[in-house]
Amino acid sequence: MRALTIGIVLGSDSDLPAMKGAFDTLAELGVPYKARILSAHRTPDEAASFAADARESGFGAIIAAAGKAAHLAGALAARTTIPVIGVPMRSGELDGLDALLSTVQMPGGIPVATVAIGGAVNAALLAAQILAVTDESLAAKLDAMRERNRKAVLEKDARLNG
Amino acid sequence: MRALTIGIVLGSDSDLPAMKGAFDTLAELGVPYKARILSAHRTPDEAASFAADARESGFGAIIAAAGKAAHLAGALAARTTIPVIGVPMRSGELDGLDALLSTVQMPGGIPVATVAIGGAVNAALLAAQILAVTDESLAAKLDAMRERNRKAVLEKDARLNG
Amino acid sequence: MRALTIGIVLGSDSDLPAMKGAFDTLAELGVPYKARILSAHRTPDEAASFAADARESGFGAIIAAAGKAAHLAGALAARTTIPVIGVPMRSGELDGLDALLSTVQMPGGIPVATVAIGGAVNAALLAAQILAVTDESLAAKLDAMRERNRKAVLEKDARLNG
Amino acid sequence: MRALTIGIVLGSDSDLPAMKGAFDTLAELGVPYKARILSAHRTPDEAASFAADARESGFGAIIAAAGKAAHLAGALAARTTIPVIGVPMRSGELDGLDALLSTVQMPGGIPVATVAIGGAVNAALLAAQILAVTDESLAAKLDAMRERNRKAVLEKDARLNG
Amino acid sequence: MRALTIGIVLGSDSDLPAMKGAFDTLAELGVPYKARILSAHRTPDEAASFAADARESGFGAIIAAAGKAAHLAGALAARTTIPVIGVPMRSGELDGLDALLSTVQMPGGIPVATVAIGGAVNAALLAAQILAVTDESLAAKLDAMRERNRKAVLEKDARLNG
Amino acid sequence: MRALTIGIVLGSDSDLPAMKGAFDTLAELGVPYKARILSAHRTPDEAASFAADARESGFGAIIAAAGKAAHLAGALAARTTIPVIGVPMRSGELDGLDALLSTVQMPGGIPVATVAIGGAVNAALLAAQILAVTDESLAAKLDAMRERNRKAVLEKDARLNG
Amino acid sequence: MRALTIGIVLGSDSDLPAMKGAFDTLAELGVPYKARILSAHRTPDEAASFAADARESGFGAIIAAAGKAAHLAGALAARTTIPVIGVPMRSGELDGLDALLSTVQMPGGIPVATVAIGGAVNAALLAAQILAVTDESLAAKLDAMRERNRKAVLEKDARLNG
Amino acid sequence: MRALTIGIVLGSDSDLPAMKGAFDTLAELGVPYKARILSAHRTPDEAASFAADARESGFGAIIAAAGKAAHLAGALAARTTIPVIGVPMRSGELDGLDALLSTVQMPGGIPVATVAIGGAVNAALLAAQILAVTDESLAAKLDAMRERNRKAVLEKDARLNG
Repeated sequence: MRALTIGIVLGSDSDLPAMKGAFDTLAELGVPYKARILSAHRTPDEAASFAADARESGFGAIIAAAGKAAHLAGALAARTTIPVIGVPMRSGELDGLDALLSTVQMPGGIPVATVAIGGAVNAALLAAQILAVTDESLAAKLDAMRERNRKAVLEKDARLNG
Repeated sequence: MRALTIGIVLGSDSDLPAMKGAFDTLAELGVPYKARILSAHRTPDEAASFAADARESGFGAIIAAAGKAAHLAGALAARTTIPVIGVPMRSGELDGLDALLSTVQMPGGIPVATVAIGGAVNAALLAAQILAVTDESLAAKLDAMRERNRKAVLEKDARLNG
Repeated sequence: MRALTIGIVLGSDSDLPAMKGAFDTLAELGVPYKARILSAHRTPDEAASFAADARESGFGAIIAAAGKAAHLAGALAARTTIPVIGVPMRSGELDGLDALLSTVQMPGGIPVATVAIGGAVNAALLAAQILAVTDESLAAKLDAMRERNRKAVLEKDARLNG
Repeated sequence: MRALTIGIVLGSDSDLPAMKGAFDTLAELGVPYKARILSAHRTPDEAASFAADARESGFGAIIAAAGKAAHLAGALAARTTIPVIGVPMRSGELDGLDALLSTVQMPGGIPVATVAIGGAVNAALLAAQILAVTDESLAAKLDAMRERNRKAVLEKDARLNG
Repeated sequence: MRALTIGIVLGSDSDLPAMKGAFDTLAELGVPYKARILSAHRTPDEAASFAADARESGFGAIIAAAGKAAHLAGALAARTTIPVIGVPMRSGELDGLDALLSTVQMPGGIPVATVAIGGAVNAALLAAQILAVTDESLAAKLDAMRERNRKAVLEKDARLNG
Repeated sequence: MRALTIGIVLGSDSDLPAMKGAFDTLAELGVPYKARILSAHRTPDEAASFAADARESGFGAIIAAAGKAAHLAGALAARTTIPVIGVPMRSGELDGLDALLSTVQMPGGIPVATVAIGGAVNAALLAAQILAVTDESLAAKLDAMRERNRKAVLEKDARLNG
Repeated sequence: MRALTIGIVLGSDSDLPAMKGAFDTLAELGVPYKARILSAHRTPDEAASFAADARESGFGAIIAAAGKAAHLAGALAARTTIPVIGVPMRSGELDGLDALLSTVQMPGGIPVATVAIGGAVNAALLAAQILAVTDESLAAKLDAMRERNRKAVLEKDARLNG
Repeated sequence: MRALTIGIVLGSDSDLPAMKGAFDTLAELGVPYKARILSAHRTPDEAASFAADARESGFGAIIAAAGKAAHLAGALAARTTIPVIGVPMRSGELDGLDALLSTVQMPGGIPVATVAIGGAVNAALLAAQILAVTDESLAAKLDAMRERNRKAVLEKDARLNG
């Protein structure tokens, strides 16, 4: 069986630096991903096709990052039942509150799994956790990453009290 | 030349009562309109087709009413250059602030002409004003309606001081 | 292989009516679930144990519903790598905005998949979508449910224009 | 018949840089425009006269840009039935939220077509779309501009996956 | 010398009940007032004339009550240097936050003395305090009213501990 | 009769630069003022005494500038019936929204005339307008200042269209 | 040694029903309290005296409940170093957000221990916890109350799964 | 009897600079404290243990500083009846509003004594005030610190008017 891939769709190439944490996290976990630049508003047909074919294309979850009136995650979610994770991007004017509400307040029937404003790393972790529901090896990697994070905190605590 | 029609798209039939003011206002002005129930999330293809054909179908403006993460106006606007007027609907949880931000904060390239939360009447007036740019008879009707409104205020003022 | 179960954790039994949509949706999809009343603040040890054992107990996703300073989803997510879906509950004072921000703005490392304020149905759908990543039969049920919803909208549209 | 002009009214000359995108967009589309600096508060009579004469002066739409308690668009809209497009300007203190609410929440009878905070480009596009309702040549230019934008996104996407 | 009068301008007759506290307070203090219904948007010329003539008409302060995109106080203040007191009215959708920001966030040069959302009584008291700057008899009445309020609180405190 | 003075009370000397516009405006109008640094929280007795003696000391209005949980204007207003003008200062964390609400949302009985966040100039103008209710010479100066501002806008408009 | 008392100060007798939970909680814990109705704005001197004498009067903590521009807690805190607990009361217009920010955003030097909007019970618990720092018997009562709450949740959980 | 200690728990070592004011204030008052870095999400067990042992370990109050969905204070408070003081940290995206609501809006039963966003100094003062309820010497130090602050304001006032 082919391994499932994570799709990462950016509404604009200007979101690439802010999403670097997602790429790095998936790479660290050894989870394959494919990044696309597709806009719900400027390339609506291409975005719709991408989502409609997502399951068939082997995607196990889709991360969608967009700012302002952030429709990208919802537009993708409307055309697939593969889990769509929305990352509200900070836009400068309203600190990302507009993107957060546009992403999370979806009407009944079409869920978007929303993470924090600018939450690129957590979007990647959530995508990996979804794959790990049936992938014990990935689950173990996630546990190990958590343990490393736990130890990093404890080491800082120890240094503070050293 | 066939008269231009106003399209009124509701994201849900539960929005019908709140949009009655738009129907009544257009009827009072003698502007033909066609109401549709189409959801950006539950019927994305039908909504996309409606917008893509809007100019050819003889629409001069489209009013789109939706609540919560209100993507409807933006989704229609992404597929037509006919003016799209967005009406953020009050959803109960966040008083329509989510719908307002989801409707108005559109990214560059795809404008939505947003009116007030629950602003059904103003959406109809704005649609009529757009047609009236090149329709002197409709412009005269709009002026007359304004004059009636002006007199109604002045009569109330006179009664208060009668 | 035993079918995966969805855990539904309520911070208070007063949340039961508002979460009914989640129970009904999972039942309609034939997805087994187990509901618990556990508070991050009043029963922190029991909540922690529940989350720590989640994978071993056969849970494929956990839905956590809480209001105000809604820590429940985050507290569970801190102790498992099973996906945790947070439902911010409306509390009356701040319309659920406090619960939304408390649930979604998780720090890096511990994601919570947040749905809309009061989004019980979407939480259930998202949980089912997560299981359906590797369950074709459930994916087909989700597709069929979407198709029913699509037709319901189109029928309402047809009636309006009948 | 004389071509319709777009009026662009700035509440302050300090808004000129932020509105440059509107000037450039209209120039690119070949739409004639006239820019004015008129304040609803400091030059109320001149602003009122400008709006009252707008139709007669050959304006097909008016763009009004103002910040803080942004009354300019509403003050102009109160005196003409030519469509008025409001651009809420970011003021520094409240990120433009004050200007957005002051512009969009107009009472029934006097609509303002509001675009995003700082949405100069979209205001120009909306104004052009209004003229294009009855101007096929302009409609074609707008379609072409959209197609260029679409291709720009797709090229970035292709480069990312090159 | 003729006594100065307080002008009370309501944007709509629907604001009359909510402003009753202002009428009663001025009556209790023996301050003459004149109430008008004038809309910044529906009767802009009449509102402008009222403000332009305010000093000559013997007004010592003007109270302006309006909701939503509440421009009334600012529109009046733009045409007189008589102090204008703005009362943001609660509109239902955004709890009066829109009216508050539209009233208080005035640009430099044209102040509006803003009181609380729905603050009819305080608007009347502020108007009276402005007159009382040079009216010792009115100042004494205001002091006496404060003393009555003080005693009312102390009596309730005494009863609680009686 | 001695001319009335404007009191300007700052909650902290760090507010001096942001309030410079108030000093300059009063100086330009020839209105005498006295600035004090008094904190509602750190020097409550001195602040209370200042307010209690305000009328007797010859103050015609008091401007109070404070940030965060800005109690200064309200604390002064509680002890005098001289008009108190509140200037909410921007604090950095919440953009002055906390100071705005703390200043403007006064309970019935004790009004504070609130101006915009950081509205030092408008506070001074409002104070001068209050004195000008019975001071024709000052009213004339205010009118002249407005006329200068009007002409400045019109000159900028003319230059833009030169 | 005389037992320490908790002072409960209400800005208005209309707050009595909403604060009943505080009275009941202290009574259940056997902690003596004294309730007062004192307004920071209508009875500033009496409020100041109460706070200035608090330590000498045997108070171990003061609970202050007020709405809107809620200055009461801060005004008391400015005059005593006894811990002051602020309860922001919901006012109807802004859901208590104004009271919350007015209470919690205190400037450096004068802390107020703020609880949730309408958090009467938690204010009482916090007051008791402060006394319990050096009162083992009261600490035991607080532990027992927590244990009862824990069991109540677990019983509801057991019934749900009975 | 051993002197009571203040626990200061930081959710991240990146909060150390912002909390320096708390360390300095306690040091200036001679109050012993112990700082820990413990995360409610990354080291939930260690955080739980710390809180569960707090009374026995000789802590008289715990200060918890965290940002975003700030669960730290609530998570500690759930496991001890020692007073927990929450400091919402500014996170950059939402100016600390998310941390404020996550910290202060605790459900009934588990109070958190919340101070202002970034209120490190006030958290330390509040902790000291709690100890000073039964420590006359510390109360005297707090009074002296207040007196120094009062004099500092008065000196600045005197210099301004020198």
